[in-house]
Parts: sequence; structure tokens; C-alpha cells
Amino acid sequence: MRMTDLIEKKRDGGELTTAEIRWMIEGYTKGDIPDYQMSAMCMAIYFRDMTERETYDLTMAMLDSGDRIDLSGVEGVKADKHSTGGVGDKTSLLLCPMLAACGVKMAKLSGRGLGHTGGTIDKLESFAGFSTSMSMETFLRSVNENGFAIAGQTGQLVPADKKLYALRDVTGTVPSMPLIVGSILSKKFAAGADIIVLDVKCGSGAFMQTEEDAFGLARLLVEVGRHAGKKVVAVVTDMDEPLGNAVGNALEVKEALAALKGEYAGDLLELCMTLGGEILLSGGIAPDEASARAMLQEAIDSGAALSRFERFVAAQGGDPAAVRDTSLLPRAPVVIEASSRRAGYVRHIDAHGVGIVSMHLGGGRATKEDDIDLSVGVVLKKKVGDHVALGESLGTIHAASEEAAGEAVMLLRGCFELTEEPVHRAPFIKGVVR
Amino acid sequence: MRMTDLIEKKRDGGELTTAEIRWMIEGYTKGDIPDYQMSAMCMAIYFRDMTERETYDLTMAMLDSGDRIDLSGVEGVKADKHSTGGVGDKTSLLLCPMLAACGVKMAKLSGRGLGHTGGTIDKLESFAGFSTSMSMETFLRSVNENGFAIAGQTGQLVPADKKLYALRDVTGTVPSMPLIVGSILSKKFAAGADIIVLDVKCGSGAFMQTEEDAFGLARLLVEVGRHAGKKVVAVVTDMDEPLGNAVGNALEVKEALAALKGEYAGDLLELCMTLGGEILLSGGIAPDEASARAMLQEAIDSGAALSRFERFVAAQGGDPAAVRDTSLLPRAPVVIEASSRRAGYVRHIDAHGVGIVSMHLGGGRATKEDDIDLSVGVVLKKKVGDHVALGESLGTIHAASEEAAGEAVMLLRGCFELTEEPVHRAPFIKGVVR
Repeated sequence: MRMTDLIEKKRDGGELTTAEIRWMIEGYTKGDIPDYQMSAMCMAIYFRDMTERETYDLTMAMLDSGDRIDLSGVEGVKADKHSTGGVGDKTSLLLCPMLAACGVKMAKLSGRGLGHTGGTIDKLESFAGFSTSMSMETFLRSVNENGFAIAGQTGQLVPADKKLYALRDVTGTVPSMPLIVGSILSKKFAAGADIIVLDVKCGSGAFMQTEEDAFGLARLLVEVGRHAGKKVVAVVTDMDEPLGNAVGNALEVKEALAALKGEYAGDLLELCMTLGGEILLSGGIAPDEASARAMLQEAIDSGAALSRFERFVAAQGGDPAAVRDTSLLPRAPVVIEASSRRAGYVRHIDAHGVGIVSMHLGGGRATKEDDIDLSVGVVLKKKVGDHVALGESLGTIHAASEEAAGEAVMLLRGCFELTEEPVHRAPFIKGVVR
Repeated sequence: MRMTDLIEKKRDGGELTTAEIRWMIEGYTKGDIPDYQMSAMCMAIYFRDMTERETYDLTMAMLDSGDRIDLSGVEGVKADKHSTGGVGDKTSLLLCPMLAACGVKMAKLSGRGLGHTGGTIDKLESFAGFSTSMSMETFLRSVNENGFAIAGQTGQLVPADKKLYALRDVTGTVPSMPLIVGSILSKKFAAGADIIVLDVKCGSGAFMQTEEDAFGLARLLVEVGRHAGKKVVAVVTDMDEPLGNAVGNALEVKEALAALKGEYAGDLLELCMTLGGEILLSGGIAPDEASARAMLQEAIDSGAALSRFERFVAAQGGDPAAVRDTSLLPRAPVVIEASSRRAGYVRHIDAHGVGIVSMHLGGGRATKEDDIDLSVGVVLKKKVGDHVALGESLGTIHAASEEAAGEAVMLLRGCFELTEEPVHRAPFIKGVVR
């Protein structure tokens, strides 16, 4: 087999065979196929697409490039969740304890953030002493005992995706559906769960800008999951503004804790109810949607979810006192309001822009080596559809200095699109593909 | 500027600016832009194409990546010729002396062959002692004195094309019109002539498989030439069989000499008459096509073209006696006929296949380091449209051994497509774009 022939075949609209796809992914992972051929192939795939069969083969070849986590020692329903990325997305912090309280097991692998805001691990490091480094044995024991644990990603899972994603990122080949599916599902399959719920974002800042594309991606994810013998559910959600109100590491932890305490209602909770509900249904834990939601609500109302979170923080070395008393979390010295210079209704909030504000404040990383300031960020006071009076606050800036705060106020104002007419907020959950 | 942004712009159908194209070609030539980004860009260009303006900018940016040959010291009409490649193409050997005899100056740069058959330099090395290594001064003096000289390519001309062509060759991005135009014209512009005639081949073995594509490429070449202030003429020709009858280094030299002696009439001579006629017209040397052809015919009939060739061989260190007495050229020890096992009319001769026969006999190179046997090859006895009787010879095999000859006979038979119905040969010259 010659890579040039495979590139030409795909370029001319041909379908790659299972053997060709395996040969290509193995060769690329080993370094036998150079980056310059793989990037040309990715661009050809971008234009010519792949069939469902090719996408499945790609996913499985990527999966087989590395190790898999063996969850056979974990009892009960084993679930996992993935989001295609979003500013202010702290879903895992909320969903894992809610589901653990309902008896679901989640052995979650997570990463650090690169770009706008921190990743889940960065956020959790807001608890002094918290660590995601542990042996596989300890990780699985925690999952069995407390229902969930969160570990840092190991280097051995899906090396093909590590290499391929880095290449796609600098060659304009990220937004290709089969390549997205291969990347997401190979990692989720390697992590070992049987039920996988996916949050597929749609909107100007997301990979999939139109609803049509987002549902197309959702269907492909579900179908490839079915071929692989996994239960995959994809929830298509709106990304016309950040998720929840807080953007910034400790601020997002605080928001998740408020939700676990029953002090928050909004898009973040709604998303967790939907994602969690799908898992309870798929796992046969709840008989229907209404019961599933009731169980999840009860997990919050009873304090069971909050307890799970507290035990989780303690089990991974963090200070559990900060769960009840959030004043113990990192706090920024400068807190000011970003007042609006106009009145009107919020039509759109540029999520990407809000992420940039948080990064400017020190809450994100430009390169892997950068340190991040866990205390800084933005808490939105207005969301899409809200009315804003002249001088009213759009959001609270948490900053390390007056100067940084002043700049952030200007930047945040630019993220808001106001209009004179009342705004009808479109449903946040666009649909579910099972 | 970031290369990723430029790739995405082209991927999404955008038009690259002059500054963007220059930045990209400069960066790639210097090694600042890696191969994996350039190959993704080439694939995006393959799918999205380039406008005439972008193609012009690409050509000029590539031209500016290296040196140019200064022909200001050469007097008179300075012309050059290029072919998009073909098996059995010995046009330069015939055209240069014919034009020199008519007063045109040709400072020709040529290369060695890689693949089926040798390049022009390999062919000329059939003359014992012949060399294309010389100082620029000697080269230009030879052009002034004898009308033409042929030198090996220098390393300083269009380094961007050297790098880019090697990349395109292994990433499925050779057959893209703007990339082909950039590659051909940047090199021709660097070689310094004012009039450039191009032989654009069309057919199953060529870059451009349909007449429509071939004429599209021809028009683009002529237009970009016009923008650059050069007179470019493109002749679209058929590639349904090898050009002329001989394929193999010394055998092709012999055929070119036969044509210069007036002992050959066929597609090769017709092509040289057309290409040469266009140059005489463009250079104002002939007032019309009929006079141009008459001048070229007279160059052969008078022996003037042959004399020019003789002086050229002597000037570059070769044995001029072999021009008159071709028995002094390398001769293969085994010469046998490839008899046909069927009767019929020749519908098609696989030019690529005949090239492979020659390579198997030792007349081509698989890698740059391979030695080639100048004596071996094939001389076709039948061309498209000819009738073949059972047992009649399809061509003569010149081989180093009986064994190699026997294999070549089998392979050559497979290159001929025979049919029972008489075959109407389509015109060899499809058209001229000026």
C-alpha cells in the first residue's frame, strides 16, 4: 500500500477499505506515514467526506492505536459524558455527583485546558491539595465506592488522536465530521463506559454552525456507537452564549456547587437534567423521562449529590470544607461590575469573546506551560433575552489588578449584542438523537 | 499572518491576496512553513482552485524565490519551449536546430529523466563526451554563436518549485491547474526567454485527461504569460500513443537525426512544425503560417538544421561524427521484432506502458542514482490507425539480453489495443491557444 494512492483515491471521491484505513492509522501513529501526507489526506476527507462505514473503521483503528481502560471491575451501569467544548462548561462537576447519587458509575478522564479557560482538572485544583494523579487501582476503587472519580488522561490512550488532532489543528482540518467522530468516540470507547452521552454544541462559536450540521454530526456519532456495540446518545444544544453564568476556574466551581445546593436554575442545570436523564433511561435505572428527572432533582434536594461531591474532593486529596464554605476557594482581590452603556434586550453574547476576557484576566493558557490564575474570571449578570437598563451590570469581573479589571470591563461590553426589541430566547436544548 | 488562517480561507473558497501568496511561498521556501501545512493548502487549492490573479501571483512569487538567467547579452528573438511530458518526446532535439537555422535563439535548460525514459540530457549523452556542465558565460556565448545550447538545470532557479513539486508528487496534488501553471511558468520565466511555446498533452496518460481540461490549462498558461509580459503560446496535442516511433535514449536521438535529415514524416515532425511556426510568427520572423512552415522545411531540406545540430554537439564536447554516422551511437546487442498475435487495426497504444517497457529494458531510472542503458528501447513499427497482419511486427526491441528482450516483447504486445474495424485517427494537433 502507498499513502499517495490512498490520498488520490479519497481525493477522487473513492471509499477507503477497512484494511486501508487501519494501515494508514497504524502507519501514521508509528511515524511511517509523514505529517505532510496525513494533512493532505485530512483535507481530502474534509472535501469528500467519509461513509458511515469508513468513519466506524477510522474510529476503531484509532481506538486500537493504544490502551483501553478495563472497567470490568466496576459494578453497575457505567456511563461517560463528552462535550464538543464550550465556554463556561462545568457540566462534569455537576452531572457526575448527581448521577452517582442515582447509582450510576462514572470513571471520568479529563484534561487541562488550553485556550480560553481551564479544563475540568484546572477547575478542580481550586480545592487546595486536589490531585488527579493516582494509580488505576485507586481510580477504579474510588469509582466503585463513591460512584465517580476524575483522573488526568494517561499518555497511552489513543495516541493516534493525540498526533492527528495536533496536526488537524494547524492544517484547517478540524471541522470535518468523520474526523470529529473518530476523535471523540475513539477516546470515549478507550475509556471503557457502555453508555456515552454527548453534548453537541451548535452555533457561531462551535464546530457545527448550523442546526442541520449539528444534527448530522449527532446522528453519525449515534450510528457509529451502535456499530461498536455502545449506547451513544447525542444532545444538540445552543451555543449562542456561555453555559451558565460563571467563566473562570474557581468561579465555575462555585456555580456548580450552588447548583448542587439547589441555588441555581438555568441552562446549565437544564443540560445536566437532560444528559443525566438520558443516562438513567439508557441504563434502565429510570423507566421514563419524568421519573429520571425526578430522581435527579431528588439527588439535589436531598443533599445526596452534594455529599457525593464532598466525598469525591476528599478522596482525591482536596479540602472538602470548601464544598460547604466556598469562601475558602481562591478569591480575586479586585471585584467590579461591568456596567452597560446602553439599554436594551440581550440578543447574543459572544461566548468565544467572554472566554477571551477570562484568558486576558489570567484564567486561561496560551501555551501548555503557562500558569493560570484560578481566582479570576467573569460572572454574567445578564443572559440572552434579559433586559438591561442603562448603567446596569452586564457581569462581575474578578481580577488580579484594577488595570486588568478595567480592560476586562471594556472587552466584556463588546461581547454583548443589545437590541431595542424584546428578544425571544430560542430553546436551549435543540433535540436529542438516540 | 498565520498559515492556518490562509489554509482555512482557501478551504472555504476565499481568494488569497497577493501579499498572502508571497508570504506563503517565501515562508515555505525558507522552511518557516512546514510541509504538512503546505500539503493541506495544495489539497485545498486542488478542490477550490485559484483565480487567474492568484495563479499569476503564485507564479511570480515562485519566480522570485530564486535567480533568473539574464539573456540580455543574447541578440535577436529569444524563445523557449516546454512540454507537459510524454513518452518518446524528443522535440527539443529537433526543434532547437530547426529554429536556430531560422535565426531564433534558444538558451535551453534541461534535466535528466526520472521514470520511464531518460530526459533530454540523458539522450544527448549518447554522443560520447557530450556535457551540459558549463559556465553561464560559455552557455550564452554558444547560444549567440550557434543559435542554441542546452545546459543542465542549476540549483538556484525557482527553489520554491523544487520543494513544492516534490511535495505535490507524494500528496496527490499534482493535477491542479494553478499549481501546474505556477510550476511550469515560474521555471520558464526564470530561464529568461521572451517567447515561450508550450506543448500541452491531453489524453489518458497526461495530467489533463479531457480536451476541455487541456484547453482550460492552455488558456490559463497564455493569460498568466500575458500578465507577466511574456508571449506564451500553448499547443494542445493528443497523447493516445508515444510521440514518434522511438522510445529509448540513443534510439530517440537517431529518430531526431533522421527527421533533421528529411528521412522522417509523422507526428513528431508535425509537432515541431507547429511549435516552431508559432515561434517564428510570434517573433516576427515569418509573416504568416505558410511562410513559417516553408522556412522550417527549408532548414531541413538545405541541411542547415543538421549542421546546427552537428556544431552544437561539437561545442558541448560530444563526437560530431555520430551525427552523420549514427552507427557510432550506443547500440544494443540484442535486436528482435515483437510480432503481433492478432490481426486488426491499432486503436490505441498505451504510451505509459511503452515507457515501462523501455524502463524494464534499462532505459529509465527508478531512483535518481540509477544508471541507465542508453542503447536499449523500442522502435514502434505501428501507430494508431495502422493495420497489423497476424505475425507482423508491432515494434523492434533493442535489449541488453535475450531474456530482457523476450519479456519486453510480451509487455509491448499488451500496450497495443487492436480492433477489427478500421480506425479513424483523430487529428494529432487539437488546437493552438495564443
